[in-house]
Amino acid sequence: MANYIDLETLKYLLNEVHNLDEVLKQDRFADHDAESLDLFLDSVKEFSDRELFPYFKEMDEKPAYHDEGTVMVHEQVDVMMKKGGEMGLIAGPFDYDDGGMQLPLMIQTASTYIQETANNHLPGYTGLTYGAAELIVHFANKELNEAYVPKMLSGEWGGTMCLTEPQAGSSLSDVVTKATPTDDGYYKITGQKIFISGGDHQYAENIVHLVLARIEGAPAGTKGISLFIVPKNRPTEDGLIFNDVTTVADFQKMGQRGYCTTHLGFGDADDCRGWLVGEPHQGLKYMFLMMNGARIAVGRGAAAISMAAYQASLQYAKERPQGRKLTSSGKKNLDEGQTLIINHPDVRRMLLLQKVIAEGSLSLVLLASKYYDLKYTASDPAEKEKYGLLLELVIPMVKTYPSEKGAEAVSNGLQVLGGYGFCTDFILQQYYRDIRIFPIYEGTTGIQSQDLLGRKLLMENGKALELLTTEVMQTIKEASKFDDLRSYANILGEKLQLAQKVIGFLVGFAKKGDYERFLSDATPFMEFFSNITIGWLWLDMATHAKNALVIGNNAHSQDFYESKIHAMKFYFKYEIPKTTSLAEILTNEEVLTIAGEKEILN
Amino acid sequence: MANYIDLETLKYLLNEVHNLDEVLKQDRFADHDAESLDLFLDSVKEFSDRELFPYFKEMDEKPAYHDEGTVMVHEQVDVMMKKGGEMGLIAGPFDYDDGGMQLPLMIQTASTYIQETANNHLPGYTGLTYGAAELIVHFANKELNEAYVPKMLSGEWGGTMCLTEPQAGSSLSDVVTKATPTDDGYYKITGQKIFISGGDHQYAENIVHLVLARIEGAPAGTKGISLFIVPKNRPTEDGLIFNDVTTVADFQKMGQRGYCTTHLGFGDADDCRGWLVGEPHQGLKYMFLMMNGARIAVGRGAAAISMAAYQASLQYAKERPQGRKLTSSGKKNLDEGQTLIINHPDVRRMLLLQKVIAEGSLSLVLLASKYYDLKYTASDPAEKEKYGLLLELVIPMVKTYPSEKGAEAVSNGLQVLGGYGFCTDFILQQYYRDIRIFPIYEGTTGIQSQDLLGRKLLMENGKALELLTTEVMQTIKEASKFDDLRSYANILGEKLQLAQKVIGFLVGFAKKGDYERFLSDATPFMEFFSNITIGWLWLDMATHAKNALVIGNNAHSQDFYESKIHAMKFYFKYEIPKTTSLAEILTNEEVLTIAGEKEILN
Repeated sequence: MANYIDLETLKYLLNEVHNLDEVLKQDRFADHDAESLDLFLDSVKEFSDRELFPYFKEMDEKPAYHDEGTVMVHEQVDVMMKKGGEMGLIAGPFDYDDGGMQLPLMIQTASTYIQETANNHLPGYTGLTYGAAELIVHFANKELNEAYVPKMLSGEWGGTMCLTEPQAGSSLSDVVTKATPTDDGYYKITGQKIFISGGDHQYAENIVHLVLARIEGAPAGTKGISLFIVPKNRPTEDGLIFNDVTTVADFQKMGQRGYCTTHLGFGDADDCRGWLVGEPHQGLKYMFLMMNGARIAVGRGAAAISMAAYQASLQYAKERPQGRKLTSSGKKNLDEGQTLIINHPDVRRMLLLQKVIAEGSLSLVLLASKYYDLKYTASDPAEKEKYGLLLELVIPMVKTYPSEKGAEAVSNGLQVLGGYGFCTDFILQQYYRDIRIFPIYEGTTGIQSQDLLGRKLLMENGKALELLTTEVMQTIKEASKFDDLRSYANILGEKLQLAQKVIGFLVGFAKKGDYERFLSDATPFMEFFSNITIGWLWLDMATHAKNALVIGNNAHSQDFYESKIHAMKFYFKYEIPKTTSLAEILTNEEVLTIAGEKEILN
Repeated sequence: MANYIDLETLKYLLNEVHNLDEVLKQDRFADHDAESLDLFLDSVKEFSDRELFPYFKEMDEKPAYHDEGTVMVHEQVDVMMKKGGEMGLIAGPFDYDDGGMQLPLMIQTASTYIQETANNHLPGYTGLTYGAAELIVHFANKELNEAYVPKMLSGEWGGTMCLTEPQAGSSLSDVVTKATPTDDGYYKITGQKIFISGGDHQYAENIVHLVLARIEGAPAGTKGISLFIVPKNRPTEDGLIFNDVTTVADFQKMGQRGYCTTHLGFGDADDCRGWLVGEPHQGLKYMFLMMNGARIAVGRGAAAISMAAYQASLQYAKERPQGRKLTSSGKKNLDEGQTLIINHPDVRRMLLLQKVIAEGSLSLVLLASKYYDLKYTASDPAEKEKYGLLLELVIPMVKTYPSEKGAEAVSNGLQVLGGYGFCTDFILQQYYRDIRIFPIYEGTTGIQSQDLLGRKLLMENGKALELLTTEVMQTIKEASKFDDLRSYANILGEKLQLAQKVIGFLVGFAKKGDYERFLSDATPFMEFFSNITIGWLWLDMATHAKNALVIGNNAHSQDFYESKIHAMKFYFKYEIPKTTSLAEILTNEEVLTIAGEKEILN
């Protein structure tokens, strides 16, 4: 079997860098210890080897399709849901009371990450079911909980999130799906939803849609949106009855072709019933409380694809002989045999670039999961607030960095294979296609960037930023203890100051009331700020590695630890300097992207 | 019909910026004038509207495939070859004596570019036939010319270039296809070639392969490679006889699926005849003399795709309402209707980024074509040398910039459409897949970058670089005459100095005999140097526009000229600053990508 994951690095990040033990000290996780969780992750890897990776290519080649009102998906979807349910891959983080295992999100993230490196199509089905069940558990009444959650956590029923509508796209203010109250405690739902991942398939006895809709007479905009449970088939005393949710189409896509994306119609025959979750008009608030998890999940999926692509191109580079190393004269010595391409500096550069992006992304995703765990389990309110703020601040980066830079990483992986990378006989082209949706999923890069700059940095007078800065300073301090890391620590310190300067410049526009200008370069700002954030995480990774070498920790080999320090240096040579230019761009006074009176864009 | 090209910009670049008239003054082009060539380009656009664009999507959906020894392609391939032949799209630049029209390469480039914006699959078939015929005309004897060229220029027979072999990839030193001399004037050919574009199809009566092979006993390496004409069917007095060239397979690819990529076997039945072109062991030299044209062609194709993708996303952005403009408070005003997405600064940024890449690439491709024309037609030897050197220097950038940055541009185009960009109902995803081969074609980015830094910059003691610098200085001088362009001219001047500094630093390693280190960052150097080169071309474009506005030239509207100045400013705000970081990377002393004793890349 091909390598698709560096499990050792995942465990290093979990245990040594992000200190899972600290999370396990919380009462909620009292029954778990690092050792048993390690075995759990091994079993997930084994499951992925057996049930996920072997079907990955096939699911692309035989994509999901719409046939007479049903979406037909690969039969392995059934295995994923049922066996995944059995193994607790859906229920893992839920309370014992709800049928869960009270796993930390860090572990759920690591588990799903492993699955996604093997096959990024299948875990979408279980993942969305998990998310939909989470919404019900948190906000719906007991009756609804009992009716839906157990069947979802067992994988018998699927779940979805229905936000997007054809006329509104990312603009949720413009949602028009209608909910009309009845006297029988339910609402009649009518409307259309598009881009619904996992929205229908032939193996699900039922699919439970969590639908944003507007109760008649509700206020305009996002303040008038409510959340409903709208099952495909409604449970009654006589069993399941079709609930007038029709599958209009399955979008055919460039990638993730085994993960269906449906267009759903609600109430075409005026018989679609929905049950309100929580209070009226609070739907978007509920959805967004769950959105942090969804956005971590997107970043995690992209991080997984870049890891898998890196492993595939690394393996190729270690096996493929081609060309010769340059001699000092610049000529090639033809008497030598061909060298492996991993020995060409340009190939090595492309591999290291992938490595720093893939592992940097994973570190960020695990960090966010840790903040999530500590936010939800901390007993000290100050701690709770601290991790809540840190989580909010990193979320838009977690969604964006692995997606945007992951696409770049995968492209470099494809390039390592030359012409073969472009051919369907090799897997790189599939990763290249699959990962391209991630900068669009769950709020595009543009939207995440506005969230980062326009909301998160200003939140509570910049308190989240202060907290993050303190964390970074701590790493700088730790790294500075080692002679050979000090210069990198110094660079990171300078970049922190540069970030302050850039933020000060941009916030100036907000203070002057010029919000459009303030946010017009939010996307380059995202690139700038996440570059520094990943620089921090790499310095942290290298510092832990250095420490392990110094104290003689033999959890991993010396080469392993040295490779982390080497990769950090690569990041600081080839990636960190980009912030110089980005700062130059962001503090440039010229305004060129705000529409004027006259349209001169042609 | 959807917009797929900005024809006005193409003509502006040809006539006003790159001054086609100067080229037309050469004796060879005496029969042509700008007006008639303009009409010719209009007829190519009309042909593209009718015969190319309507089949573009279909060719992707029904890709070429291998069936019982033949590659089956879309029937429009037949139309392209035959009608293209009739219209002179293959023969255009050839001598009148050879059946050509003595068109400047600038016009052939513009003509093929138009076709490729409409459909980047079809013109590959005619384009390679053109290239193969060119090799025969330049280097083969009269008999071979008469036997092959007329049928190729008419489009009845196809042509290919056969370089790559399975065990050698980009390393042509390792070519092993064998040519055994016979007493009858031909050679027996045996071997395998892969990745042969247009290598076989059901509509070609014959396909003429130009094959690199090694005559028995030839020296090792590239100095022992000869060039052969190896037709699929050999012409005899009794007509065409099968020449033992078998089609082993058709590579299935992620993109350009309508443009077949074959695996060919020569001499499986020991009856494959090849005819030597020119002298023995000179094959690679011949091939590389033609390679400049091939590399311009790759850059042109990529430039065409980024143009088409830009047009498609621009059209979408002008028609799609979504969301609202921000008010000064940062809130949205829900009483307003939705705005068109082109009015969102982030969308506008993505569109402008595409514009500067697409048009900058086109300008570079036309510039190279102009240098080519002037090199081949200049009567003054000093002029000939000058344009020859300038051509050599820009070639690796012409191949690379449109390919690498074009892929980035298309990705931004896809992003403009959000989720729809990822769906096969929209064309952006096809452009995204198609363009990805361009950084691999005809020498990967890594190879082009080593060519630029390792050969072209050092050529004749840096004379090419001096000549290019003089050209750039001239533009800086012209731009500085205008108050509102002067600051950009100054920036470009500073970047020229920065380039000198970076080159000095890198060449230092070559002087010390450390070639591996010298070239290890060739790819970031390529990005650095072509960024400045495109900055020069944008300043040139803006200077011509400014001049037109000042003198009241009304060949184009005021808005048109202003849009060029605006795009230049965008390039100087968002792209040029990247050279600051790239210089930082390139002059960093740390060595991280050269393989050491111990392998720590995992």
